[in-house]
Amino acid sequence: MALAVGIRVSSRALPRPWALLQGATIRRTEPAAGGGDSARRFGTQRVLVEPDAAAGVAVMKFKNPPVNSLSLELLTEFIISLEKLENDKTFRGIILTSDCPRVFSAGLDLTEMCGKNPAHYAEYWKAVQELWLRLYLSNLVLIAAINGACPAGGCLISLTCDYRILADNPKYLMGLNETLLGIVAPFWFKDTFVNTIGHRASEQALQLGLLFRPAEALQVGLVDQVVPEDQVLSTALSVMARWMAIPDHARQLTKNMMRKTTVDRLVKQRDTDIQNFVSFISRDSIQKSLQMYLEKLKQKKG
Amino acid sequence: MALAVGIRVSSRALPRPWALLQGATIRRTEPAAGGGDSARRFGTQRVLVEPDAAAGVAVMKFKNPPVNSLSLELLTEFIISLEKLENDKTFRGIILTSDCPRVFSAGLDLTEMCGKNPAHYAEYWKAVQELWLRLYLSNLVLIAAINGACPAGGCLISLTCDYRILADNPKYLMGLNETLLGIVAPFWFKDTFVNTIGHRASEQALQLGLLFRPAEALQVGLVDQVVPEDQVLSTALSVMARWMAIPDHARQLTKNMMRKTTVDRLVKQRDTDIQNFVSFISRDSIQKSLQMYLEKLKQKKG
Amino acid sequence: MALAVGIRVSSRALPRPWALLQGATIRRTEPAAGGGDSARRFGTQRVLVEPDAAAGVAVMKFKNPPVNSLSLELLTEFIISLEKLENDKTFRGIILTSDCPRVFSAGLDLTEMCGKNPAHYAEYWKAVQELWLRLYLSNLVLIAAINGACPAGGCLISLTCDYRILADNPKYLMGLNETLLGIVAPFWFKDTFVNTIGHRASEQALQLGLLFRPAEALQVGLVDQVVPEDQVLSTALSVMARWMAIPDHARQLTKNMMRKTTVDRLVKQRDTDIQNFVSFISRDSIQKSLQMYLEKLKQKKG
Repeated sequence: MALAVGIRVSSRALPRPWALLQGATIRRTEPAAGGGDSARRFGTQRVLVEPDAAAGVAVMKFKNPPVNSLSLELLTEFIISLEKLENDKTFRGIILTSDCPRVFSAGLDLTEMCGKNPAHYAEYWKAVQELWLRLYLSNLVLIAAINGACPAGGCLISLTCDYRILADNPKYLMGLNETLLGIVAPFWFKDTFVNTIGHRASEQALQLGLLFRPAEALQVGLVDQVVPEDQVLSTALSVMARWMAIPDHARQLTKNMMRKTTVDRLVKQRDTDIQNFVSFISRDSIQKSLQMYLEKLKQKKG
Repeated sequence: MALAVGIRVSSRALPRPWALLQGATIRRTEPAAGGGDSARRFGTQRVLVEPDAAAGVAVMKFKNPPVNSLSLELLTEFIISLEKLENDKTFRGIILTSDCPRVFSAGLDLTEMCGKNPAHYAEYWKAVQELWLRLYLSNLVLIAAINGACPAGGCLISLTCDYRILADNPKYLMGLNETLLGIVAPFWFKDTFVNTIGHRASEQALQLGLLFRPAEALQVGLVDQVVPEDQVLSTALSVMARWMAIPDHARQLTKNMMRKTTVDRLVKQRDTDIQNFVSFISRDSIQKSLQMYLEKLKQKKG
Repeated sequence: MALAVGIRVSSRALPRPWALLQGATIRRTEPAAGGGDSARRFGTQRVLVEPDAAAGVAVMKFKNPPVNSLSLELLTEFIISLEKLENDKTFRGIILTSDCPRVFSAGLDLTEMCGKNPAHYAEYWKAVQELWLRLYLSNLVLIAAINGACPAGGCLISLTCDYRILADNPKYLMGLNETLLGIVAPFWFKDTFVNTIGHRASEQALQLGLLFRPAEALQVGLVDQVVPEDQVLSTALSVMARWMAIPDHARQLTKNMMRKTTVDRLVKQRDTDIQNFVSFISRDSIQKSLQMYLEKLKQKKG
């Protein structure tokens, strides 16, 4: 039997400059149709929260159709909902999943990084950082119920969780595919990736922008389990029960011990990271290439 | 062909504040019954040493019934025996195993951390640190012949070895299960764990306090080999022969190169680590929970 | 979709004290027999370069019979050829392979480290460092087509590549086997090894000086693919096509992000590393052991 530690985990210790929440309103809706008597949905416009207070678990569903792009609004509402649950002692775990069919999240929102001004880019990037910082060191148990495609920023969100379950559908590709668009994953995306699948697999996957099919994702360690599509949520709930059997305090200190070094790397250079992003994204060549990519996407839909 | 190095490995360079050895006496006993003519057992009361001087190998058996708890006495005698063998040029390798049936070691001794005074906790923790520091950078080849359950501190000891062989008995669970008791593995337990099975597997296993069955332990990389129970020691001897075919000096320098960074992390903050332990273990809540746990254990036996 | 970065990758930023190239001359030869119309071989005496300008790929073949020892001349010519291709915008990728049957490269040249003076040892070691520094952060896609035995320094060269393909011949052993000769791999060999196969596998393989058979090399992650001997080069070309589908700039920044920390560790202590090597190799005991080894090799051939 071994022990120790003088580390204290405090969500208050996290930088919290993410203060003003533009027009996001918390809403409560009627009980969900199939949600049992005590279930009450709440959350925001783009982040549905289905709490099961008795179990201490909330299911959080991204609802930003068509592909759950991580727009500034979605990020903002996500952070609000997360903070709300973190501060509510009723809840010990969250299951992250998608309300949009076939897509967990397509990742960062290109329209937030194209044709806007530097101040907007900076604000957007700060929100992306903030979400990662809060998720990666969250005191809650986080489980990703990945019920759709999960590229780039969507993949990152799942990687911050404590456990990942992916639906067994060959169309649900998963990975950090930034290089395919001519851009580069930031170092903290990379650090999170390496912590999950190791250095060599990351080196290859990041350079090639690899998107893994479910069986491959399982083999490389990108997810912990692959299950039939209709069992993703029920599996997540069973797994959650197992994690909740562990005393919170010991689990939280352990999680902090595993991840704090990685988080500190960004915390120490957060402003520089924002400046780098703004200067990179403002380049004519990058703007041009993003515009072309967005045009293509529009034509595809049209 | 490649080479180099200016590193020097010296066991003398290790901090050696572990000086006074409370009443531990080295004893020599008669040759073991089945131990061949030249075999002579020696060691201390709780650490039997069966030397094979011709082979340059000693088998070291923990004998602190019923479960080889790492009491202050056992730790002290372990360190004495280890130092003795390190300083005796006859020996190049040690096989660590248990003299108690069905248990390799149950880990740290809860009675050393419960109902005592801060000075005792500090002394105890220093001994735990000292053992780890000496084992992890030992100049000798260390092989763990794990012939029983191997949780927590028992697991840690095996992880300091160069090679681990586990008996194929589904009851012999192995892992760092601290969180199950509401406590947390110290950072250097964690570092040793990560060095062995990687970041992601450690993150999950440490948070959940996972205890692995032999087949699982092999798959995750916690042990190098699983063999039938009656072949654990013979396998350890064969493996030892292979390690002893390597020139000592080159092997020692290489081991040092692989492990020194991890060891330095504790050496640099050894006193802080002790203070953290003492302050953590002295908390009322922790003392209460340890007392309850010990009560339960007593009732179980009674 | 995610991105960022303010890092700039510049080969100019690399230390370039490797200036004078002793008598190495670039030569152009006639088109290779089976090399198609546009193919033109060039390169140096010991490093053949078969460029396919249309594809943007060059095949670089070591030709230092009998075993492609990494003599100072070979290292020098290798660095020249590499720099030439790096500076020629025509080329985006290099396939490294051997012109000598059954051996990719036997590694460092013992005769460069035996019976010479300290200045020579220092010059030699600087060349070894220089090659590693240039290969490991090369802006080009590097693929190793390993068509023969690949121990020690030969293995290191392959580990600097982005992808490794090994011929399926049980005689083609691969690994860092320095300890078998009583010497130790330098820390940057070790770092490259750990980045490829992880900490635990490295710890064991480096201590034991393990040489892996193709199937084992694949399993431990030392190579990415094992193919029939006659398909090594064709496979390398197919793989190269896949890597070249990625925008260069994004791929280069990503590679740099993955490897720069490792490279910086040597850059920061390059001179110390040279001094360590020179002082180690100049020892009487090491010189004696190298001489004996070289004698044995001569007798074997004679």
